[in-house]
Amino acid sequence: MLESAPLLQSERMSISFHVDSTSGKAHRGRLLTPHAEIETPVFMPVGTVASVKGVPQDTLEELGAQIILGNTYHLYLRPGVQTVRRMGGLHGFMAWPRAILTDSGGFQVFSLNELRKINEEGVTFRSHLDGSSHFFSPESAMEAQIGLGADIIMTFDECTEYPADRARARASMEMTARWAARSKKYFEEHKHEVPWGGNAHVGTDAFVRPVDQGRTNASVPTRSEQTQALFGIVQGGMDRELRRESAERTIEIGFPGYAIGGLSVGEPRELTREIVESTLEHLPADKPRYLMGVGTPEEIVEYANLGVDMMDCVLPTRAARHGLLFTSEGKVSIKQARYAQDPAPLDPNCACRVCQRYSRAYLRHLYASNEVLAQVLNTIHNLSFYLDTMRRVRHSISLGEESRFLSSVWSRPKPGTQ
Amino acid sequence: MLESAPLLQSERMSISFHVDSTSGKAHRGRLLTPHAEIETPVFMPVGTVASVKGVPQDTLEELGAQIILGNTYHLYLRPGVQTVRRMGGLHGFMAWPRAILTDSGGFQVFSLNELRKINEEGVTFRSHLDGSSHFFSPESAMEAQIGLGADIIMTFDECTEYPADRARARASMEMTARWAARSKKYFEEHKHEVPWGGNAHVGTDAFVRPVDQGRTNASVPTRSEQTQALFGIVQGGMDRELRRESAERTIEIGFPGYAIGGLSVGEPRELTREIVESTLEHLPADKPRYLMGVGTPEEIVEYANLGVDMMDCVLPTRAARHGLLFTSEGKVSIKQARYAQDPAPLDPNCACRVCQRYSRAYLRHLYASNEVLAQVLNTIHNLSFYLDTMRRVRHSISLGEESRFLSSVWSRPKPGTQ
Repeated sequence: MLESAPLLQSERMSISFHVDSTSGKAHRGRLLTPHAEIETPVFMPVGTVASVKGVPQDTLEELGAQIILGNTYHLYLRPGVQTVRRMGGLHGFMAWPRAILTDSGGFQVFSLNELRKINEEGVTFRSHLDGSSHFFSPESAMEAQIGLGADIIMTFDECTEYPADRARARASMEMTARWAARSKKYFEEHKHEVPWGGNAHVGTDAFVRPVDQGRTNASVPTRSEQTQALFGIVQGGMDRELRRESAERTIEIGFPGYAIGGLSVGEPRELTREIVESTLEHLPADKPRYLMGVGTPEEIVEYANLGVDMMDCVLPTRAARHGLLFTSEGKVSIKQARYAQDPAPLDPNCACRVCQRYSRAYLRHLYASNEVLAQVLNTIHNLSFYLDTMRRVRHSISLGEESRFLSSVWSRPKPGTQ
Repeated sequence: MLESAPLLQSERMSISFHVDSTSGKAHRGRLLTPHAEIETPVFMPVGTVASVKGVPQDTLEELGAQIILGNTYHLYLRPGVQTVRRMGGLHGFMAWPRAILTDSGGFQVFSLNELRKINEEGVTFRSHLDGSSHFFSPESAMEAQIGLGADIIMTFDECTEYPADRARARASMEMTARWAARSKKYFEEHKHEVPWGGNAHVGTDAFVRPVDQGRTNASVPTRSEQTQALFGIVQGGMDRELRRESAERTIEIGFPGYAIGGLSVGEPRELTREIVESTLEHLPADKPRYLMGVGTPEEIVEYANLGVDMMDCVLPTRAARHGLLFTSEGKVSIKQARYAQDPAPLDPNCACRVCQRYSRAYLRHLYASNEVLAQVLNTIHNLSFYLDTMRRVRHSISLGEESRFLSSVWSRPKPGTQ
């Protein structure tokens, strides 16, 4: 699937993206990364500190997770980049043979509000764990992400706050563009240092367990010929013109994939959709387009419909921990007393191991009793629902069934029977 | 395996026990219960409120757990016996098709110290959840356990505190004997009310999911011909003579299995062993002998060696939650910084899914980061270690290898290679 072309372009060495079919604005494609081939549109479960909270890695594999996301800010603080690097990067450290994407730490650092200071050079911030002082620049964020060794890494950007006036949004967008160029420069000079690369400065034999090697996709070429892929991030607040300009400047720098950042920061959902739709028009359709940090089940279907190829969100995993479950019949707040003696499965249309085995009564009991298994099972179901939703979206695109695709999977009466 | 004899004896209708081989005092046998055949000696993981904390039921099955334990006191308070009964008993409620044993609530109630009052009739106690007042008698404890519907249930006993003088231990033992008779009387009059019994007063169709039915051991006869089995409990404090007398009086009442209670209450380990050894001499070897609430990996081997057929303990699951892991090379406190970059599996001789996939470095990171997956993986490993230990003990008994059996499995250099 990967053409054996000479290793001249960095894009060629890191990832390749093929669009197989389209339906309206939506694309179905395949994204080949050093560790796995990913079917797009794809939803990426969030595994902040090298764990999708409560879910063992083999269960994630069974659920069909193709790529998961790690947070550089958290991993940098604990266990630290050097520890992860010595264990063979995130793949070796967490024994996850499929693909991984790390964010740049920008979003988390900017979320610290009181604890950070920004200037042209970068961001000084205090750890939420112990208050210790740290500094992230485009260069140090790249260094960290190369050490963590995800398949896809992100430029260091400034996530513009909402609301922001035009002058503020422009200044922020322009700094993000300058940081994108610095990110790329550092990455190109240091990308061979990835822990699983053939030219890595640090040994890769330290920890690659045989069982993990066996599970790796056989179609993936030799790791030593490959590097990570660095994606650029479009900012520009809620201003369509600034978004267009940000897209153009980011494309001019040149990346193998483009992300839309700075959304889901408190703005109305209709505005999110408008900015996503208009920004996508300025991003090349032959490169993966990644919408960061969204959304509900309806929203991920809607964004895929607009042409987004990749999405991530903490919602399925975080909501699960609060007993909020997504089903084909709508949201279920499993803590409610009405489920105390409900013998039905959580979602009658769901084939996940939770719905196949347990009753709502049992899930309600686990939650009410504060049992750890509540979080485990709830998270497995919610992730299954998200991953199944994207599976159905991909299927619809293949069939060119735009009308069915346009309707919300969630609001259908019986999606499991289709 | 179960002879199709007329259903005259209650033992025949509930469980049957076959000793297949012996080695010294140790027995290897098979205990046939309404829901599963159990190989003995067996270790029973504790699932206090219908969940072995953090471990999904399919994982318990993969680990080879044949029977798990539920706590009547906790289940009575939450979700309540009627809820469990309506869901088809504990098996239906928690979707566990294999065997279950419930304790009588006695031990928990007596542990409440400040919150309970005892008299001949029973025990008045306050809930640890909300302070509400409740009353357990031999009769109500049987009623609760019949409603929960475990395969094996226990008489309501008084767990004598340690230390206790001889008069106190005798009075307590005698009340336990009277309560045993009352427990049996109530059970014999009401055993047909079990939620999965053919003559149950409450419908059994409410919640038996097809997937669970399919997993049930095919060799088990029709449920409607079967009842639960009520085991008697020997008390008598740390006095060998009182223990002998308690055994004789309990046997005189007559039960299909006998437990040794009132140990691991603060006494020295050498004394525990002495009381276990002397009490076992007075219990029939053709009935299962259950030692309640013990112990470390070395101890469960030792007690099996003395002739104990069944054991339960919170140690593997509770220790896991505190990062204390049992391995073939000794105890590992995974929180220690020395494991931060240790690429080795937790136990090189362990075939469990945790040791096959993850490094000590990763387990240490999960624990240090307070990730829920730490509890999940640690518990899976510790249970695997306990269940494997008992598997090896059974194998040794079959081979008549008393000398190898007598030595501690734990202290062997490489048990996994034997």
